[in-house]
Amino acid sequence: MSWFRSLIQVSATTARSSARPRISDPFSYTLLSRFSSEPARPSPIHETPAPTSTPQPPTFYSGLGPTMPGDKPRVVVLGSGWAGCRLMKGLDTEQYDIVCVSPRNHMVFTPLLASTCVGTLEFRSVAEPIARIQPAISRETGSYFFLSNCIGLDPDKHVVKCETVTDGAEPLKPWKFEIAYDKLVIALGAMPTTFGIQGVHEHAIFLREVSHAQEIRRKLLLNLMLSDVPGVSEEEKSRLLHCVVVGGGPTGVEFSGELSDFIQKDVQERYAHVKNYIHVTLIEANEILSSFDDRLRHYATKQLTKSGVRLVRGIVKDVKDKKIILNDGTEVPYGLLVWSTGVGPSPLVNSLPLTKSPGGRIGVDKWLRVPDVQDVYSIGDCSGFVESTGKPTLPALAQVAERQGKYLANLLNKIGKAGGGRADAAREYKYEEPFVYKHLGSMATLGRYKALVDLRQSKAGKGVSMAGFFSWFVWRSAYLTRVISWRNRFYVAINWLTTFVFGRDISRI
Amino acid sequence: MSWFRSLIQVSATTARSSARPRISDPFSYTLLSRFSSEPARPSPIHETPAPTSTPQPPTFYSGLGPTMPGDKPRVVVLGSGWAGCRLMKGLDTEQYDIVCVSPRNHMVFTPLLASTCVGTLEFRSVAEPIARIQPAISRETGSYFFLSNCIGLDPDKHVVKCETVTDGAEPLKPWKFEIAYDKLVIALGAMPTTFGIQGVHEHAIFLREVSHAQEIRRKLLLNLMLSDVPGVSEEEKSRLLHCVVVGGGPTGVEFSGELSDFIQKDVQERYAHVKNYIHVTLIEANEILSSFDDRLRHYATKQLTKSGVRLVRGIVKDVKDKKIILNDGTEVPYGLLVWSTGVGPSPLVNSLPLTKSPGGRIGVDKWLRVPDVQDVYSIGDCSGFVESTGKPTLPALAQVAERQGKYLANLLNKIGKAGGGRADAAREYKYEEPFVYKHLGSMATLGRYKALVDLRQSKAGKGVSMAGFFSWFVWRSAYLTRVISWRNRFYVAINWLTTFVFGRDISRI
Repeated sequence: MSWFRSLIQVSATTARSSARPRISDPFSYTLLSRFSSEPARPSPIHETPAPTSTPQPPTFYSGLGPTMPGDKPRVVVLGSGWAGCRLMKGLDTEQYDIVCVSPRNHMVFTPLLASTCVGTLEFRSVAEPIARIQPAISRETGSYFFLSNCIGLDPDKHVVKCETVTDGAEPLKPWKFEIAYDKLVIALGAMPTTFGIQGVHEHAIFLREVSHAQEIRRKLLLNLMLSDVPGVSEEEKSRLLHCVVVGGGPTGVEFSGELSDFIQKDVQERYAHVKNYIHVTLIEANEILSSFDDRLRHYATKQLTKSGVRLVRGIVKDVKDKKIILNDGTEVPYGLLVWSTGVGPSPLVNSLPLTKSPGGRIGVDKWLRVPDVQDVYSIGDCSGFVESTGKPTLPALAQVAERQGKYLANLLNKIGKAGGGRADAAREYKYEEPFVYKHLGSMATLGRYKALVDLRQSKAGKGVSMAGFFSWFVWRSAYLTRVISWRNRFYVAINWLTTFVFGRDISRI
Repeated sequence: MSWFRSLIQVSATTARSSARPRISDPFSYTLLSRFSSEPARPSPIHETPAPTSTPQPPTFYSGLGPTMPGDKPRVVVLGSGWAGCRLMKGLDTEQYDIVCVSPRNHMVFTPLLASTCVGTLEFRSVAEPIARIQPAISRETGSYFFLSNCIGLDPDKHVVKCETVTDGAEPLKPWKFEIAYDKLVIALGAMPTTFGIQGVHEHAIFLREVSHAQEIRRKLLLNLMLSDVPGVSEEEKSRLLHCVVVGGGPTGVEFSGELSDFIQKDVQERYAHVKNYIHVTLIEANEILSSFDDRLRHYATKQLTKSGVRLVRGIVKDVKDKKIILNDGTEVPYGLLVWSTGVGPSPLVNSLPLTKSPGGRIGVDKWLRVPDVQDVYSIGDCSGFVESTGKPTLPALAQVAERQGKYLANLLNKIGKAGGGRADAAREYKYEEPFVYKHLGSMATLGRYKALVDLRQSKAGKGVSMAGFFSWFVWRSAYLTRVISWRNRFYVAINWLTTFVFGRDISRI
């Protein structure tokens, strides 16, 4: 395997590695036993995975052992979202080997995800392969991307436990392995909150991954076509074509806007038979876009209503397969239900043996270090400042995650230059500038060439806040320049152009 | 429902329709009962579908009843492949209403499908929505597309039985309905042949639909990533990255070529760790590209071998989950198995109560009419000339299907003009020029900017036959101009351009 080759190089270049078959070093033992001509022990593929609760002794796992003097120090990054990818992009690969562990081999450009649900943008235009963000991952001998989930952590041993993602693709079975790290960056993100409401996971679709957008698109087109087939009652037809969005944050609002655009332009033309049956309802417990100021919020409300989105103030009590029930007893039948009511910590994050922040995120100090353990950092939606810092928990926004990734990359590069790259080697390192977050402003598109742009640092603060076509233009350009690769910038522009010229694609594939 | 609106118009414009609530006309009865304020009978959605073998009496179905004097005659088209789509494109919508029944709402541009498996082209670039091929389908009051499968046919009653496709999307259940036709065109295509070999359906992937290409792409990328994770034995890694193609026809060869291109360009760069483990094997019982002449065939063999494709002469006996077994006992381990050994009639085609051609296709005379029944025509891979015509069965090629669709569209337009559009109204029609197939030649791409072009009508015939870069250029341009819509022509060109500039997309979404 490829980590053999690195091993061979190491043994060739360093003296100490001749002493590697120490039984006390389970990893190199495992490696050597595979490497040597001894009968190889059965591949973990055929092992039945040991239950996470009772971890096996390391010798039962194959994996990446501790780095040797000849190697570069190894930074293990958990997650491939805004935080993790921005970090990997910024890390100095002359100093560090990078190992990324994530269940997906690409980063999702989340701000544009809502546009893909209705075909304004193509799915691939908002997915950026990690290998393009940080080419070292696939080129450097000691750097890897592993399509796996993190299932555990042993900070004292400097080891993360992982399990492969096989998508249930027969005949593959998931297997476990361990990775030793010099520095660990936890950027696992967050997961959608359901407030313990029954039926959300079963019947609603979230909007966080490309697969979610694909599911929404397929379901929307399926409902449009089925509602036209003989045998559908009027009630059923109205239900099938009722799209309900729960949650009035930017995601919910942007998706509603895209949806009404799709209805007004494409459904009118391509589904003329059913165009009068399709409706969008946006349900929000409080006010929509609560992070924006009143003026912009009122503008948004006016725009959405104008484009046919029904805004409902309500709290969801229960979700059935064909209807949701509100607190006041109202029953809302739906054909498509999209859930975007914010995010919270994932079960894995809860389970990790680390200090937590108020709100249950992984606690970090002002340098984004996890207290009480060595060489562990956390960034993005999964992390929050510990109480002692006196800093507030930052909102779960792409720009926060991106800024933290950038900051931590520079910090780790400095530490590396100062010779603190290896495990436990940074104890004496003098940490200087802490991470300070400066909000650059918020944007939200409303469809129909309209958007909100709020460039103030806080609702109270001074600065530009505007709405309308110009904002829409700013919004699109801003995102266009932020999409990471030139390829995707190009594709987003092409997608927008063709949507404008030919309309959205409605082939259900 | 939308067919109500047409009904209302009819009753408004025609005298006879006042007599519609005849019980003897189950359809209009069903319609009226739904239309009137009577308690609607339970929607068929909630009915448990009746087994196909014992069809319910029509009154139990809702559906489209026979057309009335005020309506245009109705052409029902079964299928949305080359034949059906070319037909719909050519039909005169001033004369006919069109109802298309198909499990997919788009046509697949099959000659370019192989390119999508490795990301040379995007999936949507080769999928053409029917609504774009024939806009009347979604605009005209009497024209529809139904996302359904045909499950039966009653030629005497001029009725087809259908069942909706719901993709198992909860909480929807498939329901049945009937459509009365004035003219019926059966263009159901064919299905892949497995020669009764065990395990093909379970473990191999065909290459006929976009969903197949998506499955191949996901599996290929999954195997590439998993083979790099610690814990994979050398043997397992070689197996995961062994891509086996069974069948040396154009599809198998083109896919092998694309795959070797992908390996040589993209895998080398993006999966450097495992680049030495991935291999392609093409298994064919006889000679590859048997329809081409020896010179071209030898050229193809040379090219494929040069680009690393292992050509194996053999017959598959058995397919297991991780290996295939050849007749001579050879065991070939594989990680990806693609099956393209030609096509044969589908079970539905076999079950239809119609005359058959030699080989079990739906029999047609030289005007593509199905003998012994009125107003039924058949085109494309599912149809073949009956023995009495003395004509050979035509190959299952896109160009045959397309030519037949074009011919039949003109024929039906003429019949319509001559007043024979309605059911049983064409008995006296004088059929003139029969359908004559003139082979325009064959093309096949080999990857690495090489292709074969054979412009002769038969292997024996005279004419141009060439190979190499120029052929590749001709091949691409030819297809580019044949992709139906400008949108997709544009996207195919853009895809080729970006693949050339940025390489193929490897994000696994």
